[in-house]
Amino acid sequence: MAILKYDELFFILKEKLLNNNFKEEPAQLCAQIFTENTFAGVASHGTNRFVSFLKLVNEGYINPNAKTSLVNSFGSWEQWDGNLGPGPVNAWNVTGRVIELAKENGMGCVSLKNTNHWMRGGTYGWRAAEEGVILISWTNTIPIMPPWGAKEPAVGNNPFVLAVPRINGHVVLDMALSLFSFGKLSTYKHEGKELPFAGGYDSDGNLTTNPAEISATHRPLPIGYWKGSGLAILFDLIAVLLSGGKSTFELGLGKHDSAMSQVFIAFDPQKFNSAESINDIADNIINSVKKAEPINEGEEIYYPGERTLKTREQNLRDGVFVADVIWGRIVSF
Amino acid sequence: MAILKYDELFFILKEKLLNNNFKEEPAQLCAQIFTENTFAGVASHGTNRFVSFLKLVNEGYINPNAKTSLVNSFGSWEQWDGNLGPGPVNAWNVTGRVIELAKENGMGCVSLKNTNHWMRGGTYGWRAAEEGVILISWTNTIPIMPPWGAKEPAVGNNPFVLAVPRINGHVVLDMALSLFSFGKLSTYKHEGKELPFAGGYDSDGNLTTNPAEISATHRPLPIGYWKGSGLAILFDLIAVLLSGGKSTFELGLGKHDSAMSQVFIAFDPQKFNSAESINDIADNIINSVKKAEPINEGEEIYYPGERTLKTREQNLRDGVFVADVIWGRIVSF
Repeated sequence: MAILKYDELFFILKEKLLNNNFKEEPAQLCAQIFTENTFAGVASHGTNRFVSFLKLVNEGYINPNAKTSLVNSFGSWEQWDGNLGPGPVNAWNVTGRVIELAKENGMGCVSLKNTNHWMRGGTYGWRAAEEGVILISWTNTIPIMPPWGAKEPAVGNNPFVLAVPRINGHVVLDMALSLFSFGKLSTYKHEGKELPFAGGYDSDGNLTTNPAEISATHRPLPIGYWKGSGLAILFDLIAVLLSGGKSTFELGLGKHDSAMSQVFIAFDPQKFNSAESINDIADNIINSVKKAEPINEGEEIYYPGERTLKTREQNLRDGVFVADVIWGRIVSF
Repeated sequence: MAILKYDELFFILKEKLLNNNFKEEPAQLCAQIFTENTFAGVASHGTNRFVSFLKLVNEGYINPNAKTSLVNSFGSWEQWDGNLGPGPVNAWNVTGRVIELAKENGMGCVSLKNTNHWMRGGTYGWRAAEEGVILISWTNTIPIMPPWGAKEPAVGNNPFVLAVPRINGHVVLDMALSLFSFGKLSTYKHEGKELPFAGGYDSDGNLTTNPAEISATHRPLPIGYWKGSGLAILFDLIAVLLSGGKSTFELGLGKHDSAMSQVFIAFDPQKFNSAESINDIADNIINSVKKAEPINEGEEIYYPGERTLKTREQNLRDGVFVADVIWGRIVSF
């Protein structure tokens, strides 16, 4: 098992990107995002996914050097085209743009079409929060979850990101609309663990905590059952209407989850609040949650983003563990 | 059991409002919203809640004739003050305003403070969709749900509304962040039914499908367990930062769920699409969901809002049933 410092991992990822037709700028940015995701504890969208990302580039599904381009604008709402470039590059670019729009106009929206998998949605939430901006964002995906009442996947798990800036730790939620993402199911499976709650259906149509069964049936549970199913339908509809891009259904017609639609909505809270009062408000809310009496005495109540921050700090200090099989695949690619 | 036509119910509700210090305009609007909610099949936020709404007015918690007033504006984002007026009046007014902002500027946001319970959040989603506008909206509430890992309520169930216009039936999702709202728990309890899924904890700390146990422990489950808990924290944070209003924690210090904070974000999809293409996009997505193979042969897959529309049509045709005990309370108030 490899233990890597930030710069070591960054360096090799960037080298691999440069060797696979990436120009300097997108190589730098993608290496940074894949490294950052790994250090934030989300290896499923960092090192573990890096080789399949390069394969999609080599197979022509991702154009490594495509530029994100402006299509339409109306006030503080803009439509951009990802031109089938790397998802992290497109999402990073339009996050930067929506932060500018929010700082100029109080609020802004960028809707993005023809992009690719953004990897960890939280990346863009953390960035907005770092710049003092509130972000509301989501992506559609290929059909990977049955709508409520169906046994066949027809909706995406459309990850949703909410981010709020706070000096003592930004509050960042990054969640798929399935109770467990396929990445999480695979982690549980490899660790030989059962899920803590039923996360989908087995081949007999019964709810199960067995991650392998759910991966096999393609029937993960939406969060809140019928509610998460409804959210998935609406997030897809809104993303497509705002961006002019492809729907989950249309993505499902292709071979890969390519040409997705995404929405980024941002607010600059400093338009109506001082930086100090923003921080006090956030601290008061977070403190009121953290002091709720825990189920198990002595256990801590966490706010969204808190553990990510701790994991990242620890990994930056001690280096990050990368499984031999993953590391081997990366260095030999 | 009373069976009432729309105008009959509307007439008596309006009369009761006029007799309880409401002026003509708010009486007209509140009677319409309470009637509409009942006909839409949401009696829990219609007839069933009407008398307690009047009591809050008489006890001084709701100012029946307060006007919603503009506090601040920055571009297409406005802050409004509900001045402790009736929640449905405030939410209806700012929905109208955010629709105007979206039609003028492509997108808009109204953040609202010092309002009261908006009753059925869907009301505002249906209105926006009726005017061709996409709505993203939520409210905070008093602490009525434990954050994940806690056994004591410290977050709201902060209902979330998403609405998209569509000629063949608007797509409107209106959902609390608890798997079952207290209204739903009470409906199951009165009907002597168990919940279809574990909806919270019993007094021994075990998950239960017994609605009465959950009402007693005040430990409903968030949708997606830790995910719904995270959503509740972020929706509260964002609502408070955008509106300058009270947080769930602050609402919990009062005797009633008064002076809530709400967010209304709207988009006019016609800025970048023809009315026809909007409808085609929505139809294609809805049809792709509805044609997914059902778990039980012959059963229908519903999209959000579909059953509400059917219930409303049926009630408009046949009249709505109001339980004698509820009807008795209203007419004798």
